[in-house]
Amino acid sequence: MGKLGESAVEKGDFGGYSTVRAQSLALCRPLAADDYGVQPILDASPPKWHLAHTTWFFETFLLKVYLPGYKPFHPDFEVLFNSYYEGVGEQFPRPLRGTLSRPTVGEVMDYRAHVDEAMAKLLDADDPEVQDRIELGLHHEQQHQELLVTDLKANLGLNPLRPAYREGGTAFASGADKPLAFVGFPGGVTEVGAHFGDGFRFDNECPRHKVYLDDFALADRLVTNAEYAAFIADGGYETPSLWLSEGWTWRRENNVAAPMYWRRDDGVWHEYRLDGERPLLDAVPVTHVSYYEADAYARWSGARLATEAEWEAAAAEQPVQGNFADGGLHPEARGARPSQNRALSRGARGACPSQDRALSRGARGACPSQDKGARLAQVFGDCWEWTSSAYGPYPGFRPLSGTLGEYNGKFMSSQMVLRGGSCATPVGHIRLSYRNFFYPKDRWQFTGIRLARDRS
Amino acid sequence: MGKLGESAVEKGDFGGYSTVRAQSLALCRPLAADDYGVQPILDASPPKWHLAHTTWFFETFLLKVYLPGYKPFHPDFEVLFNSYYEGVGEQFPRPLRGTLSRPTVGEVMDYRAHVDEAMAKLLDADDPEVQDRIELGLHHEQQHQELLVTDLKANLGLNPLRPAYREGGTAFASGADKPLAFVGFPGGVTEVGAHFGDGFRFDNECPRHKVYLDDFALADRLVTNAEYAAFIADGGYETPSLWLSEGWTWRRENNVAAPMYWRRDDGVWHEYRLDGERPLLDAVPVTHVSYYEADAYARWSGARLATEAEWEAAAAEQPVQGNFADGGLHPEARGARPSQNRALSRGARGACPSQDRALSRGARGACPSQDKGARLAQVFGDCWEWTSSAYGPYPGFRPLSGTLGEYNGKFMSSQMVLRGGSCATPVGHIRLSYRNFFYPKDRWQFTGIRLARDRS
Amino acid sequence: MGKLGESAVEKGDFGGYSTVRAQSLALCRPLAADDYGVQPILDASPPKWHLAHTTWFFETFLLKVYLPGYKPFHPDFEVLFNSYYEGVGEQFPRPLRGTLSRPTVGEVMDYRAHVDEAMAKLLDADDPEVQDRIELGLHHEQQHQELLVTDLKANLGLNPLRPAYREGGTAFASGADKPLAFVGFPGGVTEVGAHFGDGFRFDNECPRHKVYLDDFALADRLVTNAEYAAFIADGGYETPSLWLSEGWTWRRENNVAAPMYWRRDDGVWHEYRLDGERPLLDAVPVTHVSYYEADAYARWSGARLATEAEWEAAAAEQPVQGNFADGGLHPEARGARPSQNRALSRGARGACPSQDRALSRGARGACPSQDKGARLAQVFGDCWEWTSSAYGPYPGFRPLSGTLGEYNGKFMSSQMVLRGGSCATPVGHIRLSYRNFFYPKDRWQFTGIRLARDRS
Amino acid sequence: MGKLGESAVEKGDFGGYSTVRAQSLALCRPLAADDYGVQPILDASPPKWHLAHTTWFFETFLLKVYLPGYKPFHPDFEVLFNSYYEGVGEQFPRPLRGTLSRPTVGEVMDYRAHVDEAMAKLLDADDPEVQDRIELGLHHEQQHQELLVTDLKANLGLNPLRPAYREGGTAFASGADKPLAFVGFPGGVTEVGAHFGDGFRFDNECPRHKVYLDDFALADRLVTNAEYAAFIADGGYETPSLWLSEGWTWRRENNVAAPMYWRRDDGVWHEYRLDGERPLLDAVPVTHVSYYEADAYARWSGARLATEAEWEAAAAEQPVQGNFADGGLHPEARGARPSQNRALSRGARGACPSQDRALSRGARGACPSQDKGARLAQVFGDCWEWTSSAYGPYPGFRPLSGTLGEYNGKFMSSQMVLRGGSCATPVGHIRLSYRNFFYPKDRWQFTGIRLARDRS
Repeated sequence: MGKLGESAVEKGDFGGYSTVRAQSLALCRPLAADDYGVQPILDASPPKWHLAHTTWFFETFLLKVYLPGYKPFHPDFEVLFNSYYEGVGEQFPRPLRGTLSRPTVGEVMDYRAHVDEAMAKLLDADDPEVQDRIELGLHHEQQHQELLVTDLKANLGLNPLRPAYREGGTAFASGADKPLAFVGFPGGVTEVGAHFGDGFRFDNECPRHKVYLDDFALADRLVTNAEYAAFIADGGYETPSLWLSEGWTWRRENNVAAPMYWRRDDGVWHEYRLDGERPLLDAVPVTHVSYYEADAYARWSGARLATEAEWEAAAAEQPVQGNFADGGLHPEARGARPSQNRALSRGARGACPSQDRALSRGARGACPSQDKGARLAQVFGDCWEWTSSAYGPYPGFRPLSGTLGEYNGKFMSSQMVLRGGSCATPVGHIRLSYRNFFYPKDRWQFTGIRLARDRS
Repeated sequence: MGKLGESAVEKGDFGGYSTVRAQSLALCRPLAADDYGVQPILDASPPKWHLAHTTWFFETFLLKVYLPGYKPFHPDFEVLFNSYYEGVGEQFPRPLRGTLSRPTVGEVMDYRAHVDEAMAKLLDADDPEVQDRIELGLHHEQQHQELLVTDLKANLGLNPLRPAYREGGTAFASGADKPLAFVGFPGGVTEVGAHFGDGFRFDNECPRHKVYLDDFALADRLVTNAEYAAFIADGGYETPSLWLSEGWTWRRENNVAAPMYWRRDDGVWHEYRLDGERPLLDAVPVTHVSYYEADAYARWSGARLATEAEWEAAAAEQPVQGNFADGGLHPEARGARPSQNRALSRGARGACPSQDRALSRGARGACPSQDKGARLAQVFGDCWEWTSSAYGPYPGFRPLSGTLGEYNGKFMSSQMVLRGGSCATPVGHIRLSYRNFFYPKDRWQFTGIRLARDRS
Repeated sequence: MGKLGESAVEKGDFGGYSTVRAQSLALCRPLAADDYGVQPILDASPPKWHLAHTTWFFETFLLKVYLPGYKPFHPDFEVLFNSYYEGVGEQFPRPLRGTLSRPTVGEVMDYRAHVDEAMAKLLDADDPEVQDRIELGLHHEQQHQELLVTDLKANLGLNPLRPAYREGGTAFASGADKPLAFVGFPGGVTEVGAHFGDGFRFDNECPRHKVYLDDFALADRLVTNAEYAAFIADGGYETPSLWLSEGWTWRRENNVAAPMYWRRDDGVWHEYRLDGERPLLDAVPVTHVSYYEADAYARWSGARLATEAEWEAAAAEQPVQGNFADGGLHPEARGARPSQNRALSRGARGACPSQDRALSRGARGACPSQDKGARLAQVFGDCWEWTSSAYGPYPGFRPLSGTLGEYNGKFMSSQMVLRGGSCATPVGHIRLSYRNFFYPKDRWQFTGIRLARDRS
Repeated sequence: MGKLGESAVEKGDFGGYSTVRAQSLALCRPLAADDYGVQPILDASPPKWHLAHTTWFFETFLLKVYLPGYKPFHPDFEVLFNSYYEGVGEQFPRPLRGTLSRPTVGEVMDYRAHVDEAMAKLLDADDPEVQDRIELGLHHEQQHQELLVTDLKANLGLNPLRPAYREGGTAFASGADKPLAFVGFPGGVTEVGAHFGDGFRFDNECPRHKVYLDDFALADRLVTNAEYAAFIADGGYETPSLWLSEGWTWRRENNVAAPMYWRRDDGVWHEYRLDGERPLLDAVPVTHVSYYEADAYARWSGARLATEAEWEAAAAEQPVQGNFADGGLHPEARGARPSQNRALSRGARGACPSQDRALSRGARGACPSQDKGARLAQVFGDCWEWTSSAYGPYPGFRPLSGTLGEYNGKFMSSQMVLRGGSCATPVGHIRLSYRNFFYPKDRWQFTGIRLARDRS
């Protein structure tokens, strides 16, 4: 990890301690008092818990260790707000987080102030380990800012009243009529992952290492609501041959027939977004789909999902820009932008009729291209993109030492890698090599679908 | 059902519409905003839900039916705040009540005001059915006032911080050294239950009917904390022969080793009460025990629980007075009062050595007496008393007609009858013939133990 | 308990040790080797287990205690074949009984022979306690003979191939067109239950005690398949107001829409009986219904179920005769017999038009009668009759001392009493005062419906 | 797929139709009649079901499709013995397989004979698709032969009596004192997987494709019982930092403290093997461990598990020989053979003290070597080796067309790849490129641990 003082603040893409901490509170500003304590689904945590747990992180891994004479805010908080660090000790049961009416929001705010005041004494410390941990703590808080938004969306979006988080955001959705095209990429030995010490990276992104890739092609944009609705209309949810075995069981046992926030009302699909429920916007990316759904959609369309190495190799040509959470309006996925479309139309120029014949429904009309200048839309931001890669250690992976080694490594089983960040990811938080991971069934994050294809 | 206008107000033991409605809000006054939405266990409901559901009752069964032109507050509330009335329609899933951050507390207060305003137009209606339903609605709200307190106790008492609901109440606990005695009652054909139309009664208390009882004896007070602690110390929770088969399974699967709010800290039993956690008060009645625990304790003590007919026959001699919720302090069970003790010592005068020999541990020293003037302490108030009678219909039982017939009758399976009310029952709410019912495993109510014995 | 040597053998209604033991094997004669180990539902046990457990009972409670030098057959059997006696020690988990491929059937047969040989030395013992325990052991084995048949029916009847247990039995089903009538009984103080020591009785039937009954009426026969089919056709399973709350939940969660062995095939109801599956026999009693279904049917028909005291008072006039398991053919419920019908037509003579008007659908045409000579058909045998009484202790109940006290008493919660025995109950096993008990949801026993009504 | 007639029989490593079919029956010869129907755990199936399902495969995918006039043995078997083919239709619920007492073993044997007789008419068919499906069917049956053995081991080994499958096999266990050594392998671009059409391969092994590997080292033999016991003694099961998060939860919820068939008796570890339970054999490979346990052990020993590409690259130098199921004795894992040890001692010659310092406990004394002639013991046979690779599609993967495409592809989520076959894998069934897959929690297969290390 690099030092925060230099890298983050200077680059202007990260923000210092007070900026990040303030952003957590800013996200809560539209909330009613009633919203702070609710755990709508087992995967989610109450906003109040996020506010306290991120504070606990600084108290536990910095103040208690490095600040002489620090007096903890409350003796019970060590257990109450420990998420999963066995090395720290016991944890309050996760499924009961929504039952903690105390500490109150006010007390949690006092806790934040108490810790922020103490942290002020550490921010300028010379100890590089202190600086590394501060930086980690801020990245950690940014991750929880994203969870705070998605957990809140689960709360509001599953409430029968479907209240808006913030009114007024009209989704940018032009580009609707743009057919999806595939952009080709050459194979060979390539490098992915991140070097240790080269700016801030999580341990799971390292080390940078060689992989061999066959030629492949990626779709130039995410799958849209309209395209996904066609999958549904074609019986996608009733066709077992399109699904992984686990996925089919999941679908049946949970009566899944559409993405998480879709609801059919009087024959018309509606989608809850953070500004409320409305009829489906055709051109925005479909989001809140599980890996099972993404995989089934890809199979239905005659394509597949990308591996994480393919994704990273292709994305390496793109700037890390996109529809991220920048504090304005509410975070929601948007349609591909016109400027991106223009770039794409240049990149994807030219026909490939012979390959077209092999393509089935969803991917019809698309064809690979090897034009190196080709740009992919929505690679960063908008929706996390499910890859077909299970989350595991890179060759030579070494977790952080001590209790912080529990941050990433111990989750390397049964989950899938997602890439690229989403509209709920704070601006500046993400990198090309950033690996997110969720269970195949999870869909309360802003998760979307980018198609891929072989080129052999 | 009698008319509210006459019976309740005149007698001064009930209170009119505005009094009862105001009491629900008064109970919430000590709450933090965070406390209103929490559902700590599946059996409990959030305070906010109680406030809304009791309002829904008046809206659904009175305003929508009898007030021409009434405009419902919100179209979704019919489903949201329906508890279990299939005749009204769909219900929001009970286990998810704690996930409803909306409507907010403020909106629920507006809902209450909206309904109260409309109800004002019905309060003087001549229609006796309207009056009966108003009275039922107020009794219904009082029942939820009790649940509000017990559900709140579950919230605060299971929170690791164990916050007090209200500070300052010192439990009245004299009488600790008074040994428990049994008071005898003669058998024969007797009448229990209530007549239709003779003041307000729930349908399940009717009709009044004859039963045959053998001679029996009841303990002159409830089992105390100290006595129950002796049961624990004697291995009561590790002795399968003391338990019902279901109870033993329940105990093992839930790792039960003490009443619900007891916690062993450094070798000393502590009990959470609504004014906070403290070392066990010896002389107060043990409370928050399941039927299984009450039954096991009785067996251990060489006694048994009373049938509901025995209880009612014995309680018929007592005034309906006791430690009820009267709006002062917090509701908690208290020790038997000195005045009661005096009465008891008179009643229980005289020895019965021959019977003493047959008595085992817990009931040692007690002996039946047939003195008709004998008074039993704590018959009304303090703790609901588990009876050994399963909850079922009285001979000739007829439920209310229509949807309100779902009020009581459809729960007549697998539950046990409790009698006498508790410290959380509103003053004036209860009667001699009042039948409460819970599952044998339930213990989040103020439930206690009164021993009984045969006299043959 | 009386001595077996005198009472049972002399009376000719019980059979001695070897007779009862042989009957268990006779019931298994039609089995394939594959059938011995199967546990089709959690409530059931494999035939092999019944054969071993009944043997374990004699080994544990007689041979190990009273036969000097007795060498147990196998050291592990004490745990393996202990059903629920905590006093004996650990028990093999009940849900896994179907996974015990060993001991083999052959080894279980050897176990039986080993124990029978040793028991021969105890059968003539003078010790009355030994005789009492032998008698209890034989009654215990008869109870398991009934379970063996019902568990076997669950195995074969839930198998998609629906194989017959034994071919060839044509159910006796005349009386189909006989309308159901009600027979009246006068109320007052009456005695029910059994005296200690007056022949063999289980502890739960004692002591004999007084109860007060209002006037009541019982249906003169069981509800038939045709009548129950009318309930289904009338939407009985889709009408929540007919059901107990628990029952409605049970129905919905288990997708229950008919009795356990009914199956709709091409628009026609079929019923699996032990001679195979066939179209419904109209005139035989409906059987394999839960308490919830029995209760809902009764409510639909404008009647109710009887209390166990009512049942016993009415049945006291009847001889203990009926369609029991007598070793011939397969046990199945049969239609009311012509001779019974004759008796009934005498008993039920006379019209009662004024009351008829109050009766709703299922009970239409019936009317009470006070004719003391009136006989009820199918009181004993055919189907166990669900009563509305929860299973609990009689006044003055004392369980057997020691481990055998676990036989009945510890099950006195959450279950309902059934009376009268069934077609699977061994002849001679049952008495007027016999109390069977099952959970309201249970329906793999031969359980049926007798309607009752108030007469006020 | 290649033709069976040529490839398999000529090579002598496969056997023709009748040989494979006969082997299934041979495996059942030691069974008692009671053993055929038992499903001891949900993952396992009864022997009878394996015998029927493998027959169903030939009936469904060959006889019904290619043999004109073929008459199915029984109309219900299509559903009863369908394992998971949605394309064929409905399936009998897997968890209930142990409740099917019918068809009887005799009827299943008749089913096998019926299908074998019909298959005789197809064995010489010229249609290459018929030949391919026959070959697939035989490989399928061999897979079920392995499951039959492991499922049977679960039945007998979890039975409290712990009966032997076959007596008399003394495990070959020399080599106990041989310390484990690591053998180095150079990295670079290499090819793994199988070509289509090059002899029989499952679709999931194809296509052959390039991967890039870093230098790595593999242990020269499997981890032994003695080594694993040291992990336990060192508190391995009580140290959360050694475990994946899921694994720690799994361990806690299931009270796992040792491999599946280990049992501590009087302070001594015993292991159930197919010839009965006995004190632990130190030198045989530890087996029946979950991925979580294998991963935790590797972490404890300072090593890791191999990726499947590493495994295949290393194993490519080895002949496909080892301790497979060859019809003799019972299948069980054995110690590394002396001849292998000799080869190993040559291969692993030379010290590497500098690296030794970095090694922690379990792997102490080992050092990498690049000697190309080095042989690894137990690569094939003995135990399936957990790899750190999640089971997914190879680049360019194409499932079989039609319903047989459900054979492998639809399971490509949440499972881990295992390599090398086990002592229960039929001789000749396996290949270098063979990919087995199970959930991380599964351990009823013969699963073992081979350590790997980086060489950077």
